[in-house]
Amino acid sequence: MKILITGASGLIGGVLRTHLGEFGRYTISGVDARDVDDDSLASFTLGDCYDYDAMSLAFEGQDAVVHLAANAPVETPWPDVLRNNIASTHNVYEAAREHGVKRVVFASSNHAVGNFELDEPYKSIVVGDYSLIDNDPSNIVQVDHTVPIRPDSDYGVSKVFGEATGRYYNEHFGLEVACLRIGGVVPQNRPMNIRAYATWLSHRDLAHLVDRCLVADISYEIFYGVSNNRWRFWDIEYARETIGYEPQDRAEDWK
Amino acid sequence: MKILITGASGLIGGVLRTHLGEFGRYTISGVDARDVDDDSLASFTLGDCYDYDAMSLAFEGQDAVVHLAANAPVETPWPDVLRNNIASTHNVYEAAREHGVKRVVFASSNHAVGNFELDEPYKSIVVGDYSLIDNDPSNIVQVDHTVPIRPDSDYGVSKVFGEATGRYYNEHFGLEVACLRIGGVVPQNRPMNIRAYATWLSHRDLAHLVDRCLVADISYEIFYGVSNNRWRFWDIEYARETIGYEPQDRAEDWK
Repeated sequence: MKILITGASGLIGGVLRTHLGEFGRYTISGVDARDVDDDSLASFTLGDCYDYDAMSLAFEGQDAVVHLAANAPVETPWPDVLRNNIASTHNVYEAAREHGVKRVVFASSNHAVGNFELDEPYKSIVVGDYSLIDNDPSNIVQVDHTVPIRPDSDYGVSKVFGEATGRYYNEHFGLEVACLRIGGVVPQNRPMNIRAYATWLSHRDLAHLVDRCLVADISYEIFYGVSNNRWRFWDIEYARETIGYEPQDRAEDWK
Repeated sequence: MKILITGASGLIGGVLRTHLGEFGRYTISGVDARDVDDDSLASFTLGDCYDYDAMSLAFEGQDAVVHLAANAPVETPWPDVLRNNIASTHNVYEAAREHGVKRVVFASSNHAVGNFELDEPYKSIVVGDYSLIDNDPSNIVQVDHTVPIRPDSDYGVSKVFGEATGRYYNEHFGLEVACLRIGGVVPQNRPMNIRAYATWLSHRDLAHLVDRCLVADISYEIFYGVSNNRWRFWDIEYARETIGYEPQDRAEDWK
């Protein structure tokens, strides 16, 4: 299976270059505005996803695209969000359509629904106070793929945009689309703060989730990318049932 | 109450300049990239909402903004959608925040959920075939404010973007926001095709709906803008209960 990773030079791009390779079923190419030194890539295109002509040819002959290219910080200022997260994401869907790519896995973000953390019990959970749920994770009402969007930033709004564009391209052009509301992925690959005991996503669970999104039977879906953490409040049951997501890691094992 | 209409020179801008004036409680100003000849306006700013500096000063001292400025055709090409519907809409919310405007009424569109018309019974209803619902409107499951977004175009995606930005500005900055998924508004002010027997919105019902959104107690809401048509499939009960929307017109009276 030939796949193209946009943003291949970034943090998650690196995780996927390493771990998706281990599944043995992917021929991986990359596109990124920054160069990367990785001999395992079948090909690499140096190009900015904002520049349609610079990057769209890399889509030719691909079976699927994993779209990661974006400004990742939630604090990204609006002009950069508009250019690198909104306009670039449109270009990726359009290049996939133009070149007959069958599927796009879109790196959405938990920040598309980040404002649930303004409300209890999530507000307490992210600061490590579990008293409102009687210290029992089964009391947490999970935020799932059916909740209203509640972006917490311009960055979060751009992820809603990417999910909406995916839905449009799915329903009008038959593109298969999986949107992943990815949690906390860090270079250290372990929970680095209190919130991460709810929100952490390990590198291998991330790669497994993307693998399932690439090979399972889907049309348009939204899934949460989070490890099987004790204090998690993003639903993984739907991904388990729909595509067989079975996370191996738990943030509390690092306590 | 001082209100500013963006896109004041357009079709809906004209409807609101005429009919909102009749309520007697508004001092209306306008901003638009195209000039307009209307002595009833308290002030008019010639400026493109894409150009923040050209238009943002018009927001100073306003109690509310009705944001209509956009490319209106559902077929608008992506570069224009990006500039005039996405970037400009961000600017309007930001100018409202910067200048302490309390409320924004955003002209969203039925095209944010237009793909429900790919499914039955809506697909049949819009071509005038009411057999699937046994010619009984009470059999129509209404598309309401809680359905998943299903944009039918880049234009529709831009309206989802505007709704998402409104939610963000509401939850983070306290801006009151009403998003109106507006149906079919035409210069002739009557149903002009078969679909319009479901989707038509009369000028006076539109003005009444905007008036309710300006004066009722709201935080963040999504409402459908449609007259009380026999074959309508967009919910108006929620707007009736929440803000007292009572449409006077029905498309079938034109049969």
